[in-house]
Amino acid sequence: MNRLVVTVIAAGAALTSLSAAAQFQKPEDAIKYRQSAMTVMGNHFGRVAAMAQGKVPFDAKAAADNAGVVVVLSKLPWAGFGEGTDKGAPTRAKPEVWKDSAKVKDLATKMMDEAEKFDAAAKTGNLDAIKAAVGSLGKACKACHDDYRAEKYSSN
Amino acid sequence: MNRLVVTVIAAGAALTSLSAAAQFQKPEDAIKYRQSAMTVMGNHFGRVAAMAQGKVPFDAKAAADNAGVVVVLSKLPWAGFGEGTDKGAPTRAKPEVWKDSAKVKDLATKMMDEAEKFDAAAKTGNLDAIKAAVGSLGKACKACHDDYRAEKYSSN
Repeated sequence: MNRLVVTVIAAGAALTSLSAAAQFQKPEDAIKYRQSAMTVMGNHFGRVAAMAQGKVPFDAKAAADNAGVVVVLSKLPWAGFGEGTDKGAPTRAKPEVWKDSAKVKDLATKMMDEAEKFDAAAKTGNLDAIKAAVGSLGKACKACHDDYRAEKYSSN
Repeated sequence: MNRLVVTVIAAGAALTSLSAAAQFQKPEDAIKYRQSAMTVMGNHFGRVAAMAQGKVPFDAKAAADNAGVVVVLSKLPWAGFGEGTDKGAPTRAKPEVWKDSAKVKDLATKMMDEAEKFDAAAKTGNLDAIKAAVGSLGKACKACHDDYRAEKYSSN
């Protein structure tokens, strides 16, 4: 079976070695991978956001550990957005992701930067700093989702 | 909406703070989460396994970076196996996962230990050490999959 060598939305040196080997057998493998990375990242971000919003008690150790997971995951989804992965499995990624690749790369870089700041804030154990970082990272997620994520999954 | 507070298959102190806050709104959220964590982990393990098998050129930096992702992900899926998450979405987890929870916990702990060793081996940059660690970690994955993962997804 031919391997689909993806054109990676490379974003920073730290990502290079993770992206360089990111070859997926089929477009659906890339789609499943990027969706899975987003799901795990969103879950762990949500656990800290719930603390920031007062929905669950603040636990500094848990906040720091979960932020550590977020920052690792933040670097991963981009390798799954290679050329030819706009179709192959149901996806909410709009076709504009591949048309506006420079803008999407900027938004991805901004999100990774905010994830690093979020992780640093979480490690201070200061709830006010964490609240601010949750807000900034949430905005960075939303900035891309607003323009490039559809409401519904595509049918293929 | 009531939150589903899962009974966590806790496995080691390092996991505690990640698991403690692991509450899922619905069983399907837990199933999606654990499947996503497994997908991302399997992808990054596969990238290093491909090097160990000579299918792609050995890249010590990429091996180390990917192993770092694997060890972070190895701690995550277990929180998604709480009581009541045997159904709710298509899953390959057999009912025995919840009947044999002590055995499954042991297998999960063994896998996490092997992931740590794999990460340490990858960081040496020694291909022979990496090959051995890939084999050991692969066996630890398979030990659980053989008994507790079905061939096909359940229909709900």
